[in-house]
Amino acid sequence: MFTSRPIGFVSSPYKDVGEVPKGLGAQHEADGVLKILPEFGAGLTDIEGFSHLVVIWEFDRARGFELLGTPPSDNRPHGVFATRSPRRPNPIALTIVELIRREGVELHVRGLDMLDGTAILDIKPLLSSIPSERLRRGWLAEAEARQKS
Amino acid sequence: MFTSRPIGFVSSPYKDVGEVPKGLGAQHEADGVLKILPEFGAGLTDIEGFSHLVVIWEFDRARGFELLGTPPSDNRPHGVFATRSPRRPNPIALTIVELIRREGVELHVRGLDMLDGTAILDIKPLLSSIPSERLRRGWLAEAEARQKS
Repeated sequence: MFTSRPIGFVSSPYKDVGEVPKGLGAQHEADGVLKILPEFGAGLTDIEGFSHLVVIWEFDRARGFELLGTPPSDNRPHGVFATRSPRRPNPIALTIVELIRREGVELHVRGLDMLDGTAILDIKPLLSSIPSERLRRGWLAEAEARQKS
Repeated sequence: MFTSRPIGFVSSPYKDVGEVPKGLGAQHEADGVLKILPEFGAGLTDIEGFSHLVVIWEFDRARGFELLGTPPSDNRPHGVFATRSPRRPNPIALTIVELIRREGVELHVRGLDMLDGTAILDIKPLLSSIPSERLRRGWLAEAEARQKS
């Protein structure tokens, strides 16, 4: 067990949940800045060599959790562990962003989907990727197919 | 801020840190089981449609953190946020596994790199992937190139 602590905060164009693109086909291409606290700055050493980062952050505006819920991308309920719902037993979120440039303790990135001021818990380099032809996307692929038909 | 709580535990062939493949070219192909606690079982609804899962787990045997460290894959130090070191400000780990099959609250998976008994914090479906030709892998690619030359 541990208690979460922010290593920094997101500077994002999204000030309100309603502004974040959601649902089928939502694109996350917003630019913003991951502002890391100065005391953790040394932890960024050599990060600029990576094109993509895994940002782990806290759903700090979600309250409680829901084991079954209907996501914005479907009209049917699914288990929380089969969705990206913010109402999870541990309110941990994950976004893969593209690192555009680093300026000291500020990481300028593309592909944000978090609200302005969100607490960042961790950053990891993205080291590998699953080939897209090997990915099966379950209910989400079915919801997309229903929308197209 | 939140306090982490396990949603389940990993059943893994690795009983000791020294048994987990590490360093350049390490392959994580171990089979094992994510045993979810019965009270969270409903959260697994429809998870079997996804081929790959993001497992978020706790480095529950790591103590403290280190902003600069030398990973097993290199002989030079790098910032903690540019590595997968277990000694992080928030001891959060992430592994992408392939879902082989589900049996009730047990997810049989391939690609484990955690120790037996590790606490699982969250599971999310892997929804998309960065094309490998767009990935730059910084110091890790350099360390691989040095090893080959």
